Amino acid sequence: MSDLQLNPLFSERTRLLIMATLASARQEIDFSTLVESLQLTRGNLSTHMRKLEEAGFVEVEKGFVDRKPRTTYRCTPLGRRETKKYLRAVEDLLSSIG
Amino acid sequence: MSDLQLNPLFSERTRLLIMATLASARQEIDFSTLVESLQLTRGNLSTHMRKLEEAGFVEVEKGFVDRKPRTTYRCTPLGRRETKKYLRAVEDLLSSIG
Repeated sequence: MSDLQLNPLFSERTRLLIMATLASARQEIDFSTLVESLQLTRGNLSTHMRKLEEAGFVEVEKGFVDRKPRTTYRCTPLGRRETKKYLRAVEDLLSSIG
Repeated sequence: MSDLQLNPLFSERTRLLIMATLASARQEIDFSTLVESLQLTRGNLSTHMRKLEEAGFVEVEKGFVDRKPRTTYRCTPLGRRETKKYLRAVEDLLSSIG
């Protein structure tokens, strides 16, 4: 059990949801859509996205649409890999419980 | 996505690992073994075990072996059920990544 690896970034339920959403979307998602679909406050989402960005799990792009600022996020290959790795670790745990 | 039920007791990575360890062991495990295999401090483990006991996920037994106090833990049927439920919910969530 000592070699059990569960990336602590995924322990926070909200970050798990964000990564699942971004990794399954296979395209960029804008900030407001994430706020709405995950029912978070803007501040809360910002904090989580900063952590995920620092980890290299997501890429952020800030631009303008119709002169309005628009922030979009995309899952990086590393983010996808780590999310899948986490999934496999969870599956391993499940099978060990039987 | 919004109806996802994830028991917050498992949001703490350490508690998930404790429950996975106890649920897969299928027998009682003593305090010192848990401290060692999960690489926790004794205080940290105590705090988590108290929460898990309050939730009815583990049963504690305090006894003596060779006149030394010995505390052992065992996963309850509820604990096993909830651990599997949590892990399956995470699995479902992440399996959409493909």
